[in-house]
Amino acid sequence: MHKMSMQWLSLLLLLQLTCYFNSGSCGKVLVWPMEYSHWMNMKTILDELVTRGHEVTVLTPSVTTFIDPKKPSSLKLETFPPSLTKEESENFVKLFVEAWMHAVRDFFWNHLSMVQSLFWGYSDILMKMCKEVVSNKKLMTKLHEERFDVIFADAVGPCGELLAEILKIPFMYSLYSTPGSSVEKKSGRLPFPPSYVPAMFSELSDHMTFMERVKNMIYVLYFDFWFQAYNEKNWNQFYSEVLGRPTTLVETMGKAEMWLIRNYWDFSFPRPRLPNFEFVGGLHCKPAKSLPKEMEEFVQSSGENGIVVFSLGSMVSNMSKERANVIASALAQIPQKVLWRYDGKKPDTLGPNTQLYKWIPQNDLLGHPKTKAFVTHGGSNGIYEAIYHGIPIVGLPLFADQPHNIVHMKAKGAAVRLDLETMSTEDLLNALKEVINNPSYKENMMRLSAIHHDRPVKPLDLAVFWIEFVMHHKGAKHLRPAVHNLTWLQYHSLDVIGFLLACVATGAFVITKCCLFCYQKFAGKGKKGKKD
Amino acid sequence: MHKMSMQWLSLLLLLQLTCYFNSGSCGKVLVWPMEYSHWMNMKTILDELVTRGHEVTVLTPSVTTFIDPKKPSSLKLETFPPSLTKEESENFVKLFVEAWMHAVRDFFWNHLSMVQSLFWGYSDILMKMCKEVVSNKKLMTKLHEERFDVIFADAVGPCGELLAEILKIPFMYSLYSTPGSSVEKKSGRLPFPPSYVPAMFSELSDHMTFMERVKNMIYVLYFDFWFQAYNEKNWNQFYSEVLGRPTTLVETMGKAEMWLIRNYWDFSFPRPRLPNFEFVGGLHCKPAKSLPKEMEEFVQSSGENGIVVFSLGSMVSNMSKERANVIASALAQIPQKVLWRYDGKKPDTLGPNTQLYKWIPQNDLLGHPKTKAFVTHGGSNGIYEAIYHGIPIVGLPLFADQPHNIVHMKAKGAAVRLDLETMSTEDLLNALKEVINNPSYKENMMRLSAIHHDRPVKPLDLAVFWIEFVMHHKGAKHLRPAVHNLTWLQYHSLDVIGFLLACVATGAFVITKCCLFCYQKFAGKGKKGKKD
Repeated sequence: MHKMSMQWLSLLLLLQLTCYFNSGSCGKVLVWPMEYSHWMNMKTILDELVTRGHEVTVLTPSVTTFIDPKKPSSLKLETFPPSLTKEESENFVKLFVEAWMHAVRDFFWNHLSMVQSLFWGYSDILMKMCKEVVSNKKLMTKLHEERFDVIFADAVGPCGELLAEILKIPFMYSLYSTPGSSVEKKSGRLPFPPSYVPAMFSELSDHMTFMERVKNMIYVLYFDFWFQAYNEKNWNQFYSEVLGRPTTLVETMGKAEMWLIRNYWDFSFPRPRLPNFEFVGGLHCKPAKSLPKEMEEFVQSSGENGIVVFSLGSMVSNMSKERANVIASALAQIPQKVLWRYDGKKPDTLGPNTQLYKWIPQNDLLGHPKTKAFVTHGGSNGIYEAIYHGIPIVGLPLFADQPHNIVHMKAKGAAVRLDLETMSTEDLLNALKEVINNPSYKENMMRLSAIHHDRPVKPLDLAVFWIEFVMHHKGAKHLRPAVHNLTWLQYHSLDVIGFLLACVATGAFVITKCCLFCYQKFAGKGKKGKKD
Repeated sequence: MHKMSMQWLSLLLLLQLTCYFNSGSCGKVLVWPMEYSHWMNMKTILDELVTRGHEVTVLTPSVTTFIDPKKPSSLKLETFPPSLTKEESENFVKLFVEAWMHAVRDFFWNHLSMVQSLFWGYSDILMKMCKEVVSNKKLMTKLHEERFDVIFADAVGPCGELLAEILKIPFMYSLYSTPGSSVEKKSGRLPFPPSYVPAMFSELSDHMTFMERVKNMIYVLYFDFWFQAYNEKNWNQFYSEVLGRPTTLVETMGKAEMWLIRNYWDFSFPRPRLPNFEFVGGLHCKPAKSLPKEMEEFVQSSGENGIVVFSLGSMVSNMSKERANVIASALAQIPQKVLWRYDGKKPDTLGPNTQLYKWIPQNDLLGHPKTKAFVTHGGSNGIYEAIYHGIPIVGLPLFADQPHNIVHMKAKGAAVRLDLETMSTEDLLNALKEVINNPSYKENMMRLSAIHHDRPVKPLDLAVFWIEFVMHHKGAKHLRPAVHNLTWLQYHSLDVIGFLLACVATGAFVITKCCLFCYQKFAGKGKKGKKD
């Protein structure tokens, strides 16, 4: 036991030294995380921070779906009583996902209003949780005493910025995107010209026809209005009460020192950025490790034909019997071996070339030299792993940002898109054949992969660099654009344009009046002269 | 002799290997440079490219003020007959500088129109030079045969992009800024919101009052109009003729793969960027080398008081006797020793603490631990050296971007600004005392210096990275925003807004008509009923 402690102590000392050598001093990071894929991505950064010797404390309900407080971890946990039980929480997520999966195929107006009502429901839960944290005097005193250097929060779930205001420390965000990019636009003041930047959920690319630009504008206006209306009613009042002065969610979030966006130009379409927005997409990607022995044997048995990896992500592990049979039947007809992450009953049409798994080491499979294609729901983490390893995609987007993501990959020539609910066996078979046999998909994906790898700094290093920068310099105010001090009217120079137009109009009016006056005078004189 | 050749061969081999290890392959770069400070900055990048084993060829008139074709250099030169003799060229620059120095103190409208006419004159010379190059069949054939991988051009002097179009190779730019940022905005489609991004020459900061925003808007509109009008008349026609299809300068420049902007947020105010714009300000900065023995002795003789470095740059080495006496008299009254770069007659009031030099090792002096202040005209290269070494500034801006630069440093609390033509001895004395004795200037400059040094990648490495990227991937199309395919009207969504307003108006009209129709019908019926 004593020997163990000594080993731990040496390791801790080594880590501290690493930190001192890297950035001059070690810091204390408080984390306000979100669940599922958000957490998977953020954890990569947190682990790296710990490796560099920083102390990372995650603030989380004592019951969550993503952290087990009993499991040993290099991250410190600071828990608070949960507002939902684990069952309630999982039920909420299940209903949330199902409702959205249904809405995604609905008429676009119905889709939008469903997304809105889902987010409002989710936001209510978040607010309840946030209220419990900030009103928990014992917890808040403890957080105060810990003297953190920075709060690192997921921008999708508000509260991190409120804690930062109360604790008087700088904060920064991790974010992929928010509905209609409203948060980045309103709080971060990031420009999103609707003429070539497709709004999240619009399923448009950066090259739009006139009617597509009209559609995009409607999405933008809709989400802006919705975001404004909801905050006005709920968060603004809550934040004002807690901080004891009139404020808004937008204003408080707008104080973020940096926004680490989980995207890059291998995946996203190029669009304007601001100096305090850094694009760190794919930071969780890493080289493949070797597979478990049995799995490796199955993969090797595919010979020259190689394998196909099939996964619909961590939130959806099941589907109807009929759909499973449609899929299994298509998979049975390809010469490749298939590894399918599937938790349901074995489909009747399952071919001998397909193996079912409750969980697969997705990154290790995508990085395997035998992998030919990736059938995915299109979560951003999975797509990044496919880009990292250069594996073309068959996309079966289900809900949330997934259709948006697959549209991106399709536009870049690296994916075929299908609809899980309506596709036939033949559709899936053709899509797989196309992606595997038409070399353009592989070529395009390898091009994206080259772009992904050929960057001045690795995305994980970039993310950690800016967190260390904010801790070291107590902020990053030099990156903050002055637009934060302007109203919407001032930002768009509408007051200036109005003033200049008024000047021109006044000038024109005065000149016309003068001309008329002179004309009348001289014409009058002329007439008088004639009369005389 | 044979031994020498062998040594050269080994060195060349080593360089080639460096290049292979660094980026996978060595490339051939063709350079279209500009003179004076532009060249000084660009040369740093070119030297680094050569160090990494790339072959760099500079395309230049056989007579220039900045390259001596007879001097040994690691850069290859490709010369063409000059359109002006060295004397004519130097005379033009002298007149150009004098006219601008006079105009800078004029009423702002006169200043603007003088800048415009100066640039038109300069542009005419550039066009003549460009015409001579592209019509020189022997030279163009040679350039074709050389099979360059990239053209690296200064965006202030057009022609590089035309050569790239003719030679069918990718090109990229080096740029600090153009008048009113017209080129970056029109060709690069970089957003410059006039509400918080001050136009070059406006001498405004990013925090503007209403009337300052009006002034900024006038600058923006003026330069946009001027840029458009001049190109329309001259360059567009020339480019269309050479390329044999209707085109414009804006369109041709807009094809640049990357823009390397010689600025960063230590110096510039934060503003929107695009993925194909990289900010590499201060790339020429480097640690100080030791001073010549005599100079070091003079510096050391300053004791605890330290020294002041005084230089008005490479373009202005002289001034009137009266002004020189005003300056010398102020310098004589400070306890510091002064090193003054001055090529004129020794002023009568020169104190024993001041030494005159025809040339000074500016960077080495600014990096000397005894340096307390830097009196400068405010060229961007010199300011970056001051930021790098953390030396506060007394700014005496003369012309061009210099007033704009000093405004930046003043807004960041790191400089005091004076007017060389009107300042008194007391003004200069007070400014020097303020900058040296008020610790806030040093503190602010050290803060900027920390920001400058604490970046994820050194700016020179970043510049070279992107040049190598473009050579290796034959472009950087993934960074190019789709805005390049949109007209001004489309980009600002004016067509979409018009359409939506028309829809709303039509809807409102139809509903009103229906209501009126129903009302009349029912009201009519009611009346009829009553009558009945």
